Amino acid sequence: MRKSQSFTPNWIDTPPEKGTFRSVFKWGAPDQTKHPGPGFYRAVREALELTDADFQQPAQTGEKPVAQDIAPGLSGEELSALEQIVGSENISTKTFDRLKFSSGKAMEDLLKLREGKLENLADVVVHPRNKNDVQGIVALCHEKKIPIYIYGGGSSVTLGLECVRGGVCLALGTHMNRVLEFNETNQTITVEPGLMGPDYEAALNNAPKRFGAAHRYTGGHFPQSFEHSSVGGWVVTLGAGQASSYYGDAYDLVISQEYVTPAGTFSTRPFPATATGPKVNDIMKGSEGCFGVLVGVTMKVFRHFPQNGQPFAYMLPNWETAVASVREICQGEFGMPSILRISDPEETDMAMKMFGIAGSHLDRLMTLRRQRPGRRCLLIGQADGQRHFAAQVKKNIKKICRSHGGLYLTAYPMNKWMHGRFGDPYMREDLNDYGIIIDTLETSVTWDKLHHLYQGVRSYIKGHPRTICMTHASHFYPQGTNLYFIFICRAMPTEDFLAFQRAIIDRIEQHGGSLSHHHGVGKMMGPWMERHLGSEQMAVLRAIKNHFDPCHIMNPGGTLGLNA
Amino acid sequence: MRKSQSFTPNWIDTPPEKGTFRSVFKWGAPDQTKHPGPGFYRAVREALELTDADFQQPAQTGEKPVAQDIAPGLSGEELSALEQIVGSENISTKTFDRLKFSSGKAMEDLLKLREGKLENLADVVVHPRNKNDVQGIVALCHEKKIPIYIYGGGSSVTLGLECVRGGVCLALGTHMNRVLEFNETNQTITVEPGLMGPDYEAALNNAPKRFGAAHRYTGGHFPQSFEHSSVGGWVVTLGAGQASSYYGDAYDLVISQEYVTPAGTFSTRPFPATATGPKVNDIMKGSEGCFGVLVGVTMKVFRHFPQNGQPFAYMLPNWETAVASVREICQGEFGMPSILRISDPEETDMAMKMFGIAGSHLDRLMTLRRQRPGRRCLLIGQADGQRHFAAQVKKNIKKICRSHGGLYLTAYPMNKWMHGRFGDPYMREDLNDYGIIIDTLETSVTWDKLHHLYQGVRSYIKGHPRTICMTHASHFYPQGTNLYFIFICRAMPTEDFLAFQRAIIDRIEQHGGSLSHHHGVGKMMGPWMERHLGSEQMAVLRAIKNHFDPCHIMNPGGTLGLNA
Repeated sequence: MRKSQSFTPNWIDTPPEKGTFRSVFKWGAPDQTKHPGPGFYRAVREALELTDADFQQPAQTGEKPVAQDIAPGLSGEELSALEQIVGSENISTKTFDRLKFSSGKAMEDLLKLREGKLENLADVVVHPRNKNDVQGIVALCHEKKIPIYIYGGGSSVTLGLECVRGGVCLALGTHMNRVLEFNETNQTITVEPGLMGPDYEAALNNAPKRFGAAHRYTGGHFPQSFEHSSVGGWVVTLGAGQASSYYGDAYDLVISQEYVTPAGTFSTRPFPATATGPKVNDIMKGSEGCFGVLVGVTMKVFRHFPQNGQPFAYMLPNWETAVASVREICQGEFGMPSILRISDPEETDMAMKMFGIAGSHLDRLMTLRRQRPGRRCLLIGQADGQRHFAAQVKKNIKKICRSHGGLYLTAYPMNKWMHGRFGDPYMREDLNDYGIIIDTLETSVTWDKLHHLYQGVRSYIKGHPRTICMTHASHFYPQGTNLYFIFICRAMPTEDFLAFQRAIIDRIEQHGGSLSHHHGVGKMMGPWMERHLGSEQMAVLRAIKNHFDPCHIMNPGGTLGLNA
Repeated sequence: MRKSQSFTPNWIDTPPEKGTFRSVFKWGAPDQTKHPGPGFYRAVREALELTDADFQQPAQTGEKPVAQDIAPGLSGEELSALEQIVGSENISTKTFDRLKFSSGKAMEDLLKLREGKLENLADVVVHPRNKNDVQGIVALCHEKKIPIYIYGGGSSVTLGLECVRGGVCLALGTHMNRVLEFNETNQTITVEPGLMGPDYEAALNNAPKRFGAAHRYTGGHFPQSFEHSSVGGWVVTLGAGQASSYYGDAYDLVISQEYVTPAGTFSTRPFPATATGPKVNDIMKGSEGCFGVLVGVTMKVFRHFPQNGQPFAYMLPNWETAVASVREICQGEFGMPSILRISDPEETDMAMKMFGIAGSHLDRLMTLRRQRPGRRCLLIGQADGQRHFAAQVKKNIKKICRSHGGLYLTAYPMNKWMHGRFGDPYMREDLNDYGIIIDTLETSVTWDKLHHLYQGVRSYIKGHPRTICMTHASHFYPQGTNLYFIFICRAMPTEDFLAFQRAIIDRIEQHGGSLSHHHGVGKMMGPWMERHLGSEQMAVLRAIKNHFDPCHIMNPGGTLGLNA
């Protein structure tokens, strides 16, 4: 046992070679990693009934170079017409580029890429320089009936990026990543869709220097993919950041948008509110590239008061009291914390190990208070905003948690979580390297169906042999929350994995959960849309699709369940 | 002068006779009135250059009975098919009934009804008992191509109710006014669309008794029409209540809806948030009866803490500092007050007279502080929610108002306003009785365009001879606010009035305002929609219209600018 505890798997540290499959599927920055810590490693090894010997040498690492021998399906004439629009330096038919910009980060993508499969490639990657380029490309493709797919940050986990019908992939992050306008009076910023999260946030944080503003600002949008996702991606997939309970999700943050569609280019108007009928601005949000290309978006921004942040962490006796606490917080009419998160017992126990709390002084205190592993649930969060406001929110949360038997854990677990929050996806490669699947599915649900959904989905996942299932709720509303399921199990053939995944999605849908709270639909959830929304609502989406894109060139092949 | 001050016009106090035009256009309860007080009366008389002699005897009072001699345009077969659906007691072809349910409360309606004009009548008024009735009626009308119009509370001021193509008017308030479900866990209530404001709010306030709930609740939606508007009307016209800055407007309050349309019946799902593509639930909001009939709606509700309300009132030196104060409040990240309202100098001076403050101790204090009539601006409001939250919001507002030279006026002006807030529309009949027009137009605007819009619209209205123009902002967002223009002038021929009104709408639109913040579009704003939203967005609305209602039977004739 002692020997085992000191064992560290041979995690891969070297950045992937350029041109390899691994360089396509690896999360984040090429030279960055975050390996599972000893607590997490041991927990996984034990739950999956593996031994240290299974972690001596990685299996399939995907370090094979991508062959460069697949000819594009477009004609020379079509390619040259595209080249005339964007210039020869902004177009590529190299197989590697086409693979890279046709791949997302769903487990299915990763499994296939590791196996060296070349599927669903765009015929050509185009890097538009501006709106005019996009207009030219859309007009050309509409005329020639060439499919168009759109790539922002590349972090989709719903098969949103696969170019299943070939055609053109628009890479928006290359050039279309500029700030177009910052308006301090209105507290808005207008940006191109390819601007990445950290650049967006840095511009706002440094508004005094960057724009001559009187104050610093924040976008308030911090999805786990923050470092590797784009503002446009947030909007067209309806993302939600970890601070959405206070700042709102992407749907709430958008003030106005500009789209290039086969039916024309238009901007919605930036009014703070209107009663001028159904809002086309809202119809476009979440359209996932099926109606047109987002070329500019005006977002709400907020005063940035990092010094006012009030972190907190409580241990609640069990899942029921954790849920009761957060519901009371959301319905308390005293303002919302920005970050709030409750973990179920399995995730809580894992967090205690990952944060190094298991066995510590804090752990002994919890045990004294009869808060035992396997039952106790972690609640962490942070209040933001004006100083007194944030302090009062924290105070109210304290009162509520205490009334449900909560034990204050200091801000330590919250700070640990905060510190590592964007790095966790890096661990996926490490586990995959040793034949371990780690994947997530998420949903939203009203309070009254939460426990039914939680039990129904969890029991199914736990029915799979040797499987970890950690669940948390992390986005809160007075009417309900989301549930986020993380499951870890031994690798299996891709088809078996997909059958398992489909069965979980079925369970979610049948137990009253939404198909997605913030991952979006993509091609993964598409097949459930008709059953989920009903044929009448799907017919509305199809009518709008047919209006914008009568030739079905925009992101065809099942996204949003539009089987076109 | 002294004699003049004691003069009181001969305001009409007797309820209108049943069956008269006056009984159709009179605001509110038949036996209720609210006459202009002496301060308001004198101000109007002076500004319009009238004398007490002009207020001796009302002119055209519309007390003529409605002739009962107009035959319905539908065939006997069609009428009997409708009767078979709803029963003979729920159908009427009486001219009076058809006029009543085809009339709203726009100034144009009132002028025409006063003149005894019978225009835009439905052929038949039908009172559906439930969703099944509505389904039967919609199916029949779709088959026979008979227009359907929908009447909720009847308070539309945008020509939303006129049955310009005849056909069927559905009166939803008669039977379809039930609470279908109250869900305390989710803090939602599901109601039929014809439920009126006071009944809705009373059910929530009395939730412990009515539903066995643990707490009392509020809907948080209090438009000026509250007492005479329906929940369904709020939703389909995108209303906003006077407390919307905290609780949200109707668009925000809706969780899910059920619609009967020619293309089928469907319910949207009540998730607190989703990322499952464009939201059909949101597409239906604001559809003003052009897509289908709302038959059920689930709304957010809030804990009711009337004891926590924190009213306040400040006098700011001028319009610029008033606007700067409210912007700072909205962008302060300390939570929002529920009610907030700033009045421009002209409205402020009128309010001082109406509230009896002009000439009082408070007035002398303001004068000492150099806050003079013609410049000073009133800011009133109330913070709600949890006790400490409301107190902190008020405290922050105090700090901000003081920093802009604001003088605290005690809660007195706010309480005066609060007390009279739903009664003011009654004064319209009194003024109209003496040949005085009083009308309102409203818009929303971003902060950066507010002064340009205010000046552009106000200067135009003030260019009309002998005209009062009072303006306030009363719904607030971090990105901007609404502006609400009230103008009072001498009566003129209806066509001249409409030309004046159209010119003001033109000014609003040209100066960067939205066509509507919360009145909706109706047939009044319809003609501007194409220019306002652009042809691409209007084409989207038409595509959705054609999907739901291919025969264009739903509310045809210009509503939403759908010229069908």
